[in-house]
Amino acid sequence: MERVRIRVDPAYDVMIGPGLINRAGELIAGVHAPCRAAVLTDDTVAALYGQKVLNSLKEAGFDPCLWAFPHGEEHKTMQTLASALNFLAESKLSRGDLAVALGGGVAGDLAGFAAAVYCRGIPFVQIPTTLLAAVDSSVGGKTAVDLPAGKNMAGAFHQPLLVLSDTDVIRALPPDLIRDGSAEMLKHGILADPKLFDDLRTGKWRERIDETIARNVEIKRDHVARDELDRGVRQMLNLGHTFGHAAETCSGFTLTHGQGVAMGLVMAARAAGMDPTPIEAACRKCGLPTACPYPAAELARAALSDKKRRGDRITLVLPEAIGKCALKTVPAAELPAIFARATGETI
Amino acid sequence: MERVRIRVDPAYDVMIGPGLINRAGELIAGVHAPCRAAVLTDDTVAALYGQKVLNSLKEAGFDPCLWAFPHGEEHKTMQTLASALNFLAESKLSRGDLAVALGGGVAGDLAGFAAAVYCRGIPFVQIPTTLLAAVDSSVGGKTAVDLPAGKNMAGAFHQPLLVLSDTDVIRALPPDLIRDGSAEMLKHGILADPKLFDDLRTGKWRERIDETIARNVEIKRDHVARDELDRGVRQMLNLGHTFGHAAETCSGFTLTHGQGVAMGLVMAARAAGMDPTPIEAACRKCGLPTACPYPAAELARAALSDKKRRGDRITLVLPEAIGKCALKTVPAAELPAIFARATGETI
Repeated sequence: MERVRIRVDPAYDVMIGPGLINRAGELIAGVHAPCRAAVLTDDTVAALYGQKVLNSLKEAGFDPCLWAFPHGEEHKTMQTLASALNFLAESKLSRGDLAVALGGGVAGDLAGFAAAVYCRGIPFVQIPTTLLAAVDSSVGGKTAVDLPAGKNMAGAFHQPLLVLSDTDVIRALPPDLIRDGSAEMLKHGILADPKLFDDLRTGKWRERIDETIARNVEIKRDHVARDELDRGVRQMLNLGHTFGHAAETCSGFTLTHGQGVAMGLVMAARAAGMDPTPIEAACRKCGLPTACPYPAAELARAALSDKKRRGDRITLVLPEAIGKCALKTVPAAELPAIFARATGETI
Repeated sequence: MERVRIRVDPAYDVMIGPGLINRAGELIAGVHAPCRAAVLTDDTVAALYGQKVLNSLKEAGFDPCLWAFPHGEEHKTMQTLASALNFLAESKLSRGDLAVALGGGVAGDLAGFAAAVYCRGIPFVQIPTTLLAAVDSSVGGKTAVDLPAGKNMAGAFHQPLLVLSDTDVIRALPPDLIRDGSAEMLKHGILADPKLFDDLRTGKWRERIDETIARNVEIKRDHVARDELDRGVRQMLNLGHTFGHAAETCSGFTLTHGQGVAMGLVMAARAAGMDPTPIEAACRKCGLPTACPYPAAELARAALSDKKRRGDRITLVLPEAIGKCALKTVPAAELPAIFARATGETI
């Protein structure tokens, strides 16, 4: 088992290894005295792992209950959040009790947000069940729901007490969910770790999945540690995302986030004047697309409506080499030209 | 004009004086560069002061907009919060923009919560328009909405950039809203300031309303400063509230919060074995009731269902003299006997 320490206040551990779901109760008892514990999840994950987590919590002395919402990003709303909060209240959780966020990114974001605001914040434990959630949303403390006007537009920063990533669960995922997580791992490799990038390019990461996830968690931790409230160096984690979000928006969100990010990584390399060939090869090995089918002008328009824009300047993350990137802030007016370079329209 | 500095991180000022609403734009410009500014309020306050605040913001270079929800505690819900968030998104506010919470406790709690979670937190300025909001909710950073299961059960800690308490607005309030604020001022006097208590007992506080509000803000600040996240010494501010909330609950919330707190202060004195006569006299001078009409057993049951209970012990705040109180944690099983002493049933 791997263990990564996240030194926020208070510090917590991300544990990564096989069989952790069945040991959830015992491991959670190591960080919180037995109490009422509400498992918040979606219906798909509830059917697969709900009972296991409940049993494990019961054996460790907790008094657990479970609430599941219909799966899918379209349910990551204020209405579902209100239902989750009503469940916590009806289940008589008080401030010292515990929420357990069980599932992928949607369940983690929604359940974490519920824990952040119920009684103005109760402790929570995260059990990510997708590769993307394990390598990305288990660090950083971001929780959110979508508003009709945009994704993740309401939320809170709320740190978990403990994160349990069960690699048996992750190995059992269907290929499309592995691909989606691979895109963020590629991003981390390009940002900070040529060895990780190489493992992804050759496919060797699958032989050492525990260490690979741990390495990704470390890279994300090192980028958010000095900057818990999302400014400065944390922006590096947007590598591929300004370009990728624009592609996702242009597709009417028929592209997955992972597909968008993969296209975004290739575009960022081209925009930076770097040879995109190694990134394209690694994307292909991970089953991800490389070519963005939308015209630069349309992508630039989509990027300009993104909520991360501050005033009329935009900060881009541009790779200089595998393992080394830099921030560059440019006037919004330059975006069409930058996107043209990124899509290869000016080549 | 009075000015009280609140040393949270970052620190902010509470300004108290006549005519501040008309100077809102200029004063806000002192703490935040002109930007998009969304005034969030209820329909009653919007009709009285909405246009003044908008004009003042416009003159100071802000780009303001206004959203009003139907007044009343019954609208302090997750549904109204979702509407507020949608308004902010449709009005294209971004992370660097500003919310202005204009109104009494309900508007402040709701608008503050919206500011706390929109884009995971945007800055906000509070303009309290009731005495209760000016002396109580302008310090402490608590925001919330009610859930069907209970009051203030979802919320966040979010500190304002600036608080503007216009004493012309407060002087113009109807008597019932003055009474409601007086109850919290009496509480502050009993907790920490015999002089303030005396000004309330004699009615002299009305001649020095600016200083009186400032003194109340200082007392609340001193209790929350060392304890921003609601533990320990901040619990002193619950003086009269365990008893008072129980009375409110038994009345089916036909008692106002101020009436409940006044009864609670008298009950706390009796429970502590202190002569309640001076507190009763001060309550009467402020137009507040002193005798609680509900039987001790019923009050104790209501108190036991309160969310502030941790496990099976309850912490009470008991006055020893005017200006000096102490915390006492007792087993929940003792509550019926304590309430009997508090209502005088055993005398």
